[in-house]
Amino acid sequence: MKKNILVLSVLLLSYINSFAQETALNRYVDPRIGSEGLGRVFIGPSCPFGMVKPSPDCTARPNSGWLPMPEQVDGFSQVHVSGTGGGPKYGNILVMPFGEGMDRIQHIDYRKDETIKLGYYSTQFKASGIQTEITTAPKASFYRFTYPADSLKSLAIDAGFFLGESSVPDAREAQQFVGSEIQIISDREVMGYTRIRGGWNNGRAYTVYFYAETDKPFVRTSTWKGNKITNDKYQYDSQQKTGALLQFESSDNVIQLKIGISFLSSLKARENAHAEISHWSFETVHQQLLDQWEGLFRKIEISPRTPDAYKRMFYTALYHTMLMPVDRSGENPLWTDNEPYYDDFYAIWDTYRTSSPLITLIDPERETDIVRSLINIYKRDGYMPDARSGNSNGRTQGGSNAEIVIADAFVKGLKGIDYELGLEAMLKDATVPPGGNGEAEGRGGLVPYLQLGYIPYGIPRAGNRTVEYSYCDYAIALVAKGLGKEDLYDHYLKQSGNWKNLWRDGYEHAGAKGFIMPRDEKGNWLDNIPFGKSKIQKPTFTYTPVTFEGPWYTPWWDMFFYEASSWEYSLSIPHDVPGLIEKCGGAEKFEERLDIFFDKEFFNVNNEPSFLSPCLYHWIGKPHRSSDRVHEIIRKNYNDGSIGLPGNDDSGAMSSWLAFHMTGLYPNAGQDYYLINTPLLEETSFKLEDGKMFKISTKGLSNKNKYIQTVTLNGNTYPYSAIRHKDITDGGELILIMGEKPSEWGKQLLSN
Amino acid sequence: MKKNILVLSVLLLSYINSFAQETALNRYVDPRIGSEGLGRVFIGPSCPFGMVKPSPDCTARPNSGWLPMPEQVDGFSQVHVSGTGGGPKYGNILVMPFGEGMDRIQHIDYRKDETIKLGYYSTQFKASGIQTEITTAPKASFYRFTYPADSLKSLAIDAGFFLGESSVPDAREAQQFVGSEIQIISDREVMGYTRIRGGWNNGRAYTVYFYAETDKPFVRTSTWKGNKITNDKYQYDSQQKTGALLQFESSDNVIQLKIGISFLSSLKARENAHAEISHWSFETVHQQLLDQWEGLFRKIEISPRTPDAYKRMFYTALYHTMLMPVDRSGENPLWTDNEPYYDDFYAIWDTYRTSSPLITLIDPERETDIVRSLINIYKRDGYMPDARSGNSNGRTQGGSNAEIVIADAFVKGLKGIDYELGLEAMLKDATVPPGGNGEAEGRGGLVPYLQLGYIPYGIPRAGNRTVEYSYCDYAIALVAKGLGKEDLYDHYLKQSGNWKNLWRDGYEHAGAKGFIMPRDEKGNWLDNIPFGKSKIQKPTFTYTPVTFEGPWYTPWWDMFFYEASSWEYSLSIPHDVPGLIEKCGGAEKFEERLDIFFDKEFFNVNNEPSFLSPCLYHWIGKPHRSSDRVHEIIRKNYNDGSIGLPGNDDSGAMSSWLAFHMTGLYPNAGQDYYLINTPLLEETSFKLEDGKMFKISTKGLSNKNKYIQTVTLNGNTYPYSAIRHKDITDGGELILIMGEKPSEWGKQLLSN
Repeated sequence: MKKNILVLSVLLLSYINSFAQETALNRYVDPRIGSEGLGRVFIGPSCPFGMVKPSPDCTARPNSGWLPMPEQVDGFSQVHVSGTGGGPKYGNILVMPFGEGMDRIQHIDYRKDETIKLGYYSTQFKASGIQTEITTAPKASFYRFTYPADSLKSLAIDAGFFLGESSVPDAREAQQFVGSEIQIISDREVMGYTRIRGGWNNGRAYTVYFYAETDKPFVRTSTWKGNKITNDKYQYDSQQKTGALLQFESSDNVIQLKIGISFLSSLKARENAHAEISHWSFETVHQQLLDQWEGLFRKIEISPRTPDAYKRMFYTALYHTMLMPVDRSGENPLWTDNEPYYDDFYAIWDTYRTSSPLITLIDPERETDIVRSLINIYKRDGYMPDARSGNSNGRTQGGSNAEIVIADAFVKGLKGIDYELGLEAMLKDATVPPGGNGEAEGRGGLVPYLQLGYIPYGIPRAGNRTVEYSYCDYAIALVAKGLGKEDLYDHYLKQSGNWKNLWRDGYEHAGAKGFIMPRDEKGNWLDNIPFGKSKIQKPTFTYTPVTFEGPWYTPWWDMFFYEASSWEYSLSIPHDVPGLIEKCGGAEKFEERLDIFFDKEFFNVNNEPSFLSPCLYHWIGKPHRSSDRVHEIIRKNYNDGSIGLPGNDDSGAMSSWLAFHMTGLYPNAGQDYYLINTPLLEETSFKLEDGKMFKISTKGLSNKNKYIQTVTLNGNTYPYSAIRHKDITDGGELILIMGEKPSEWGKQLLSN
Repeated sequence: MKKNILVLSVLLLSYINSFAQETALNRYVDPRIGSEGLGRVFIGPSCPFGMVKPSPDCTARPNSGWLPMPEQVDGFSQVHVSGTGGGPKYGNILVMPFGEGMDRIQHIDYRKDETIKLGYYSTQFKASGIQTEITTAPKASFYRFTYPADSLKSLAIDAGFFLGESSVPDAREAQQFVGSEIQIISDREVMGYTRIRGGWNNGRAYTVYFYAETDKPFVRTSTWKGNKITNDKYQYDSQQKTGALLQFESSDNVIQLKIGISFLSSLKARENAHAEISHWSFETVHQQLLDQWEGLFRKIEISPRTPDAYKRMFYTALYHTMLMPVDRSGENPLWTDNEPYYDDFYAIWDTYRTSSPLITLIDPERETDIVRSLINIYKRDGYMPDARSGNSNGRTQGGSNAEIVIADAFVKGLKGIDYELGLEAMLKDATVPPGGNGEAEGRGGLVPYLQLGYIPYGIPRAGNRTVEYSYCDYAIALVAKGLGKEDLYDHYLKQSGNWKNLWRDGYEHAGAKGFIMPRDEKGNWLDNIPFGKSKIQKPTFTYTPVTFEGPWYTPWWDMFFYEASSWEYSLSIPHDVPGLIEKCGGAEKFEERLDIFFDKEFFNVNNEPSFLSPCLYHWIGKPHRSSDRVHEIIRKNYNDGSIGLPGNDDSGAMSSWLAFHMTGLYPNAGQDYYLINTPLLEETSFKLEDGKMFKISTKGLSNKNKYIQTVTLNGNTYPYSAIRHKDITDGGELILIMGEKPSEWGKQLLSN
């Protein structure tokens, strides 16, 4: 009876859905956007901030697991990250259907076709002819395998597989195997775990526990340890790779599989599987996933008249922004308390600029939980992460940017956060050196930063650390002021000017004067940078504002700037653009410099340090020039195709940058306003808390009418080129009247 | 049939054993020695360096679990440490037999009697009348419960219990519950785990997995989560306490239980239980334990004429020395490689002086493995531990003393150690500040130590850190020299004089001149020490050479000296006693000072910093005075009773100090010689590698003839008061001719 009700309700659901689908926003999401080229986004099914991310692993190389056809498929593993660079992480608990006997561990096959949709992945294999369909719940994945009638029906569960395995012992950024275990506990259930350390963030060991259940019984089983296949029902952890081979009745053409995942235990994984998926309906799991996303997409509705390509780009960008960090509340093996727990901040250095601000607009309660988890990680682990994965802080890239995430939440008035404790966490970064642990957390080079006011060359990433620490100091100042701590405010406001200590005033390059340049501890500017250990040779190489890396044998992550040049970082002072303009010789020189920056392509579209740069024209009263730059960048680099992102999406960073600019708003993280630009979308409505709504409308927007003439906010003329967060959360309408020529609008950023 | 053979062989064994017992050295071990008062030794069964240490837990307070009768017994848990102070650690997986129904979780009872022997513990409970007998294998414990015929036969397995639980949230040094799980997997098997963080070393979460098997089936079972008892066969980890209640046939008066333990998984715990205990013979498990110990005790044989009390004190001291660290090879959840893995270095600050050197003499291969594991912990975790427990480095107490352990192994020629990597690990301590992590590992205060040559007051433990770092620097110098690195040698030899930078020359106290005293970063000596944060009041307290602690609200672990006074640390310069004598004003003044130190009881017998002090008379050519001090200290503070140790045994530190002095040898850790004193034992034979033997004999030793007159080594006159390690490992005989009066022997420590 119960079953019939289930079947009925599923039928009913799918009827409602077939109708709903036509109006659903989630139909615009295409997980393939940014999946090829540099984007590296995760293409498999995932719930918002979902812990489980099942996907094909096409060799053990790619960060997201997936590679385009015709690349081989090793199988389908359950945990992945999205859009990351460097050494891969995760790729745990690999399942692979096959049509043969139980005599081999690996069953690599090739795709005949492939379907990638929101919450749904499907492929048919060439050799085996088996079709695999995948969807997922937050903590449990769901598979439907359709075997050819005439083949054997077999399934491999590999607890030893992981991404980024290296033949070099202890290779940097490579994941390293620690242990695994497998248990066949009934004729439909297998459980176990895999334990891995390292990977991009050089993290400590993490353990992914699983519970796998099929809807039909196994008729034959084997297990393996190392390369040895046996008839044992389990393989205990002797720090070797283990797995199971399962075979089903040859009449069972369709086998369904649910895999619960946990970071606590296999029984918790079992609980997760049964709590989230109490049935065997693939469609129901998929529909629940779609409903979760739809609820979030509905928070930002855009004009129905929007071109499909823009709809796809926009909602896919929102989707990418909410794949990570991952909600692991109740799944933390390190401590127990009542705070939320998020992992896979990967990396905040990438996401603090636009991802966090976008989540704050779409789902402020979610961002509140994320910020609370950051502060709690400080309380339990000693430092907030700049990046964190596999329950380990690491790797720092520049600043201690969680501070900016807290400041952003604070200035935007997110409720339910202990900001006093948050400030304590920020001050820990700013006052307690991480010592030998500086690559994992805290502020490496803090001692000289505090003594000299800058980080001298020789300490890894001295340049961008100095620039970013001063930005983080500004974030501390803002929160301190808001909490009424004037002494702290004064101290850190002053310290936030430290970037000027690396500003080499006279230095000219390509028509611009003044750059952030390397300096030694005695204060000398370094044109030639020493490298290597030889005391006799004293080898050097010439450093210029376009230098990215030293000689091949100088580790790039130890360079003066991380993943960027001085041209980029010398324009990356988001907390003191007026001070930067002054340093650059005033408004006119600054505009010239920006033009050189973009026209001579010193601007690097595929990395985060220059995210704000196209908008810097706002500060010289020429927002229309910012808009021109932004639109040109998007036109040249973003689209709704599989190579639609110009760089690693970095768990949604690139995507959230795009999403903001499509609406016409752009945040300056840690501060309470958004810059106003010409949008790509003619209408955007934000559904806010307490039923409030904020609408951005354009009048006459077209390729010709691309310049804002006048602006009204709730009917009143609005002369400023930026708008405060509170003006948005209060609800209302911002109308942009467009025209063919640049106008006088927006000479000033905000009212004083 | 097989069973009969087992029974036969057991009978045979026990026959042989009954004979062997009479000559066995292990019969002299009394685990009760040092179990009461400050000693805090572990009284339960343990194999040498055994991972599993089952013991009664008498309330959740005591460090070793056990307290003397009439204290209550909560049950018997499987993991403990020995002789530790501060907040407790472990006390995991509690089992408790009871004679009632299945309606309660706790079954606290009281002891009617108690038997504590090597490898054997037995008690009968007052209320239930149940007798519990315990023995153990290295990774699996074994229980025999004998129930009254007329009572129910029940057993509780509590995966939520642990020692040192505090009602104060996040109390310092308190263990904190993280999670637990229980599964009844058959009618004779239960498995699960407990996950705990914190404890004395403020460590990260550790997980103790268990597999429990009984020799008779359960007829009824329940499980609990939180306070709720249910009929479920398992309780998954929802970060609450769980456990199982088991009941047996009422005809089963004797129930045997084996509990495998693992730090990897429950299945590995199962493997450990079955691999180590494949049968149900309590006696066989016990005999195998006795045989392991006997093999080690046989390495040092003493004269049969030795008084029983001395035999008991000596062999129990050896026993205590080999309880920890714990061999966890193959049980490391953090990484996998071919190096040995040891945990529960608790703490090296305590054990480096005498425990490591004693293990090196008894079992050099064991010490080699221990040193290799320390170096490998550096390689994997970044720093060697000063203390480590639950797979986490922490807490540092003073120096980075693993460096001295390595130097001790190096100068004594232990083979199979990568000393180049070892030196790298030592240099990491000495050059890379641990930053905010200074309480866990590395050298806290390293930056000022290197800049000023001392650690200024205000940095926790500035005094003893300065003194100990300079000792560690000497250890680095020795290894560097041995590896042919003259530059390093010169650098660190010079740096090893840093203790002098805190030596306040003129300062007089109680008739002595010159003390290690607090100094600020400007170089001023501090008579009055500031404390508290008030800027108006500027409160201070007077610091003198007998000051132990500040006001109650200044944390004692942040004081100038850790667990000691300036009187003690000002005489604790083991690497430069001649330099110390000079600082004290020459031989005569030094002797006066030593006399004041002991006669006025500034000497603290119950802690390690003064371990070498009684022997300092050797350096002024009066070894007989050292012997007098040593014998007086032993007579007053050590005996073969339960209060036979004057301080925390600190996993064998106190005991190994005693054992060395009983033989007449005393090591100066990190250096290659042993001081010669009047022994308590008239004859001691060391069985060395390659069948070599080194014998220390006395001629005419008695309470009257307590002074060494002359010494011969292998028949030749030996005028020195110390002997090199190589002279011992070469084998031979050292004969001490005794007399009533002090003699001219031993004016010089060693040949130059």
